[in-house]
Amino acid sequence: MNYSMIRYMLGLVSCFSAMFMTLPMLVSVIYKEKSGFSFLAVALFSLAVGILTARKKPQNRKMYAREGLVIVALSWIVLSIYGALPFALSGDIPSYVDALFETISGFTTTGASILTDVEALSNTCLFWRSFTHWIGGMGVLVFIMALMPAKDSSSMHIMRAESPGPSVSKLVPQVRNTAMILYLIYFGMTLVEITLLLIGGMPLFDAVTVAFGTAGTGGFAVKNSSIAGYSVFLQGVVAVFMVMFGVNFNVYFVLLRKKPRQAFRSVEFLTYIGIVLGSSLLIAISILPMFPNAFTAFHQAFFQVGSIMTTTGYATADFNTWPALARTILVMLMFVGACAGSTGGGIKVSRVILLLKGIKKELQMVCHPRSVKKVKVDGHVVEHEVIRSVNAFMVLYVVIFVVSLLIVSLDEKDLVTNFTAVAATLNNIGPGLEIVGPTGNFSSFSILSKFVLMFDMLAGRLELFPIMMLFVPATWKRV
Amino acid sequence: MNYSMIRYMLGLVSCFSAMFMTLPMLVSVIYKEKSGFSFLAVALFSLAVGILTARKKPQNRKMYAREGLVIVALSWIVLSIYGALPFALSGDIPSYVDALFETISGFTTTGASILTDVEALSNTCLFWRSFTHWIGGMGVLVFIMALMPAKDSSSMHIMRAESPGPSVSKLVPQVRNTAMILYLIYFGMTLVEITLLLIGGMPLFDAVTVAFGTAGTGGFAVKNSSIAGYSVFLQGVVAVFMVMFGVNFNVYFVLLRKKPRQAFRSVEFLTYIGIVLGSSLLIAISILPMFPNAFTAFHQAFFQVGSIMTTTGYATADFNTWPALARTILVMLMFVGACAGSTGGGIKVSRVILLLKGIKKELQMVCHPRSVKKVKVDGHVVEHEVIRSVNAFMVLYVVIFVVSLLIVSLDEKDLVTNFTAVAATLNNIGPGLEIVGPTGNFSSFSILSKFVLMFDMLAGRLELFPIMMLFVPATWKRV
Repeated sequence: MNYSMIRYMLGLVSCFSAMFMTLPMLVSVIYKEKSGFSFLAVALFSLAVGILTARKKPQNRKMYAREGLVIVALSWIVLSIYGALPFALSGDIPSYVDALFETISGFTTTGASILTDVEALSNTCLFWRSFTHWIGGMGVLVFIMALMPAKDSSSMHIMRAESPGPSVSKLVPQVRNTAMILYLIYFGMTLVEITLLLIGGMPLFDAVTVAFGTAGTGGFAVKNSSIAGYSVFLQGVVAVFMVMFGVNFNVYFVLLRKKPRQAFRSVEFLTYIGIVLGSSLLIAISILPMFPNAFTAFHQAFFQVGSIMTTTGYATADFNTWPALARTILVMLMFVGACAGSTGGGIKVSRVILLLKGIKKELQMVCHPRSVKKVKVDGHVVEHEVIRSVNAFMVLYVVIFVVSLLIVSLDEKDLVTNFTAVAATLNNIGPGLEIVGPTGNFSSFSILSKFVLMFDMLAGRLELFPIMMLFVPATWKRV
Repeated sequence: MNYSMIRYMLGLVSCFSAMFMTLPMLVSVIYKEKSGFSFLAVALFSLAVGILTARKKPQNRKMYAREGLVIVALSWIVLSIYGALPFALSGDIPSYVDALFETISGFTTTGASILTDVEALSNTCLFWRSFTHWIGGMGVLVFIMALMPAKDSSSMHIMRAESPGPSVSKLVPQVRNTAMILYLIYFGMTLVEITLLLIGGMPLFDAVTVAFGTAGTGGFAVKNSSIAGYSVFLQGVVAVFMVMFGVNFNVYFVLLRKKPRQAFRSVEFLTYIGIVLGSSLLIAISILPMFPNAFTAFHQAFFQVGSIMTTTGYATADFNTWPALARTILVMLMFVGACAGSTGGGIKVSRVILLLKGIKKELQMVCHPRSVKKVKVDGHVVEHEVIRSVNAFMVLYVVIFVVSLLIVSLDEKDLVTNFTAVAATLNNIGPGLEIVGPTGNFSSFSILSKFVLMFDMLAGRLELFPIMMLFVPATWKRV
């Protein structure tokens, strides 16, 4: 284990944390709010720590998969510890545990909140809350990678550890350029959404924060009613952009290179769009009697499906009151999640495809035991290693889910609340059902449960392995 | 596909079905009940069908894995179709769909019932209901195998398809002898339990039927209060025997060969006993305030844990009213299930062990990517094929679970009922929570849902692959 490299990278993360906080400071100046001082204090502190830690550059800059995973896991923890401080210092969220929960929920783009009254927060804190979504969506280390020169072979390990999906492909030969292209697409799409929301009549502050929440597929809103208070047009814009941010960014990159045919032929993309439209239709039919006309029913169904499947978590309706079929479909979509290489969470459509193809192969092998079958996706053979790792992911996922559920059950809430609270955090969605439903929140959980759910949010965003590696003794051996 | 062999085996199954029904006829003579005539009629019919079908012996008796899986799946369906007829003909269960549900629940040792008043049934039908558990527990084809001479290489495929667990080992070189030894242990243990129940003062009819339900880890009782009405001693006997029938029968075979050390050193056995005792203790602590003393609390906890983990489903308490922690532990045990090679259902302890070892290996491989790690259990290297098949099992399990849950949700019951109804049938347990809790039943589901749950019971008992093979086109190709 290259300890000096870890120290150095964590120092860099501290500096970047300070840099990120300049934006909410700017907001506090605009709105003349005192909470800006908390951000200033924390930023100065983290900058000092960062400079002290990262001053000495490591002589050995070689990193392997192990270093990549550990750096990513620790960076996210460090970033959250800093990020929670201004909430607590400014008094907007007095309890530091709650502030940490809210911040981890922000960075991991979960959107699960412990707040009962969002509108009571200062604009500065609201802005920071939404901005954490935007940073976390594409990844903080991918951001650092885009700005810092680094040895390619080493930084690929970090990128692989932070980016969602069963296998990460470089868009262009150089990791740094890949990271820059990803952030440019991300930034561009966010700008387009803000513009459309402004055109639709949304105030600037709301437009920016809502767009941050959409882009990162996070789900923190600045109103207690989430997105329900905005016009149907604005809700439609948010819905379409949620679905768009759930698409593998490779698709946009290929589009930019003017190869639309190639872009839309990806099996994952087609399956994803198919599930979104199919589920919306099914749910629209089942909730039809609750709404005045078919358009409204489909609009509501599409919004909630887009929000849950991309693991954003914005709400325009309390689906807690919807029929069991609709709720069951939504709970299932929580697990499927968005596409690999998007800002969305969950198990990911491509993993689900690989798992299903694996079963098909297994069943066929019973008939032809000696045949050599390969699993193919988009015409390419999937490496055996990827399939094995997807299987391990699924099992680990179930284990984390079960252990979390067990601990959270100690709070003696109802089973649906416990189950969907774990599902909503591990899949980085935000709201679940019952107590943690769209109109509820996570404040009533015990401190122990809150820490478990924080762990789940981090494990979910980083796709289990980085966080789990911290608990494997072999990780910490010097050699 | 060797079609003539399938025809022949299904003919044999029809004949054996008639043979099984002679026992309830005997009971009807003792109790002078008219329902015996229904059994006589069905037995004559199935005997005639069986003789006609199996008259011509197939020239080519060669079977492969494919034939084994299909024969097992179809045999269980045929057996259930016959077995349900006397319930419907005698009028004890007027609806044939309900009768079929009850019979499949019996043969698959699930114990899920559509009856609201068990005690209204004739003794003949009650006996048959419990006897199906006993037949299904060890397997009907294993029974036929024990009595009929067959080519070893071929019949091993059938035994493998019908026996639970990730890999089936022959106790002795010959399949037929293995089948006979298994049934002798099974028969012997059942007799010991009946004797102990009689000593404890249970009436003979109750003792025999309760022992059948315990041995097959089924769970049909002859009283509306399940086992709650019997003395603490009798409940204790049932609890201990439930746990014993959930142990891999290999352990008893090794014990019989007087190698107790070797018998109890198996990792699966130790893990199983550890989970049973650990969960009982945890639950006992959580329900302590509900009971007069610690002994009663532990007794109740141990009984319910043994009942759920071995997937029997007998109840002495309505755990629906227990605290959330206790209920969550019970729901989790539903999935773990008993040991491989036992009469219990569920995912099986050995599969859980293999899955966990697989994760550990995967995490270690990140640190040492080039090392060759092998998964070992009990000191033996587990074949790569077994691990791959366990992974495929898990994924297939999740897929069947999700699809079933979706269809059952159409009934618009609450989520906990839907979830535990699918869990209780797919894992062959019997009762779930809420509407299908220990004091409830499955009668209120729609016909569609009942068929889905019947499918789940069969898929669960036969461990998914045999039933799924029926839907793979490649299975039905002649070559």
